Amino acid sequence: MTTPMFDKVALIGVGLIGSSLCHAMRRAGLAGTISASARTQKTRDTALRLGLVDEAYENAADAVRDADLVILCIPVGLSGVIARDIAPVLKPGAILSDVGSVKKSVIEQVMPHLPKDVHFIPGHPIAGTEHSGPEAGFAELFDHRWSILTPIENSDGAAVAQLKKFWEGCGSHVEIMTAEHHDLVLAVTSHLPHLIAFNIVGTATDLGKVTDSEVIKYAASGFRDFTRIAASDPVMWRDVFLHNKEAVLEVLSRFNEDIGILTRAIRDDDGEKLEALISRTRKIRRDLLEEEAQEKGED
Amino acid sequence: MTTPMFDKVALIGVGLIGSSLCHAMRRAGLAGTISASARTQKTRDTALRLGLVDEAYENAADAVRDADLVILCIPVGLSGVIARDIAPVLKPGAILSDVGSVKKSVIEQVMPHLPKDVHFIPGHPIAGTEHSGPEAGFAELFDHRWSILTPIENSDGAAVAQLKKFWEGCGSHVEIMTAEHHDLVLAVTSHLPHLIAFNIVGTATDLGKVTDSEVIKYAASGFRDFTRIAASDPVMWRDVFLHNKEAVLEVLSRFNEDIGILTRAIRDDDGEKLEALISRTRKIRRDLLEEEAQEKGED
Repeated sequence: MTTPMFDKVALIGVGLIGSSLCHAMRRAGLAGTISASARTQKTRDTALRLGLVDEAYENAADAVRDADLVILCIPVGLSGVIARDIAPVLKPGAILSDVGSVKKSVIEQVMPHLPKDVHFIPGHPIAGTEHSGPEAGFAELFDHRWSILTPIENSDGAAVAQLKKFWEGCGSHVEIMTAEHHDLVLAVTSHLPHLIAFNIVGTATDLGKVTDSEVIKYAASGFRDFTRIAASDPVMWRDVFLHNKEAVLEVLSRFNEDIGILTRAIRDDDGEKLEALISRTRKIRRDLLEEEAQEKGED
Repeated sequence: MTTPMFDKVALIGVGLIGSSLCHAMRRAGLAGTISASARTQKTRDTALRLGLVDEAYENAADAVRDADLVILCIPVGLSGVIARDIAPVLKPGAILSDVGSVKKSVIEQVMPHLPKDVHFIPGHPIAGTEHSGPEAGFAELFDHRWSILTPIENSDGAAVAQLKKFWEGCGSHVEIMTAEHHDLVLAVTSHLPHLIAFNIVGTATDLGKVTDSEVIKYAASGFRDFTRIAASDPVMWRDVFLHNKEAVLEVLSRFNEDIGILTRAIRDDDGEKLEALISRTRKIRRDLLEEEAQEKGED
């Protein structure tokens, strides 16, 4: 048996991302021992029963003891509290990372508690499904997907390189950028689409003149694509919207300006303008499918 | 060989829906002869080469001669012009239908030209993909999907029953409702989602600080689901938005009110309200998946 990359990895939280990380680490033999904390007994039992983790604790501080890599897999709003709880017991030289969809806020929350001898490297795997919980995870979730690392000013180069190797071991491609840029990019590619999907599903279900059962019956005509991401975990997303407020409000305002232009074209019966506005979006789909084919081909 | 339901069926237009209808009719033996018209030589050649149609014409009037069932499979904005062209040659007793995503406007466009002895029964199969053209069709497109018929005041009951049987032969479930209600239901389930998807993809590609290649790279985080429907045929959708203007503007205005409430909750850091707003959308996804499982199970 080859030596694992880390003797002990601790995960705080065993939801979709945490449990998928367990599967992916097992698949690649990246961790000697996997320890985790989860708030509910049910999640801990499930994680142990499925063999996701070797040790399960109620308190984060118990899980991180002696761990060489600690990854926060929790709603981003909890980052500060957890950092405070685990700081006293983090192993000197350990890497501390996370998987949150927002990076600036996580850094702001964690930094005040961070011990000097711990390498803090925020991260975010761009992967997910609309399912939640420890049974939702699977080893392939990160395959061919991008994981973003946003090292802070004094992040140690060797630690960054090791965490990069870890994510590659989980099947990811890895990109490195600043937390600021991450938060803007994700506001566009992820936070705005989720906000809009939550909103449109809400609008449809509140419209008195059309029943929910009609909405469901005829969902194949477009609506269905929105319900998938609108089924994502509400607590996780509440935290994302609140903790990336500035960027989310900025792209939302751009979105609203564009909606205004589209609305006016419809109201004015301006077919030419309308067609021009909705034609420009086909190219990006083609480019996206090409890129995906290429990424899969490379591996 | 059993007798086909119609000796001759004529399709005006052989795009995604028209070509899928050809496949579905062949599969179930619904038509003795399939005739079609298409504006471009290329489409006619493709339709003949693929064996979709037995006869292909440039002019709609040539295609509908002697047809027992004529289905308009064209952007809804062309309905009036085509109805005018084919009216003089429609066979007495024939059924005239269409597949447009808007029904009131199609009725308004067709009625002035309709011969007294022709049964006009507007229709709309709730099925589609983001692909267009005669090569995009496939026999299973309508399977387990709903097709809506919106008979007009003087529609003949026997003709409606026969058209219902035709769509069932193509794999569909059939629902009958008024054109007004259809247009409102589809504004919610289809037109608004498409408008929003076109808009969000447009917003993302115009945002200077985030490059198109970044949008594509990190699309898995939510954006991807929108690009599929935003890749739909722009001319078809331009016509839908313009010809269902009233209902589209109404649901768009509801959508904007809801966006306003969500935006305010984010700006006010109102986590409780935000979570409540985005929690109510999970149920509809569950109901939708149950409904789909049931529909497939029934057949």
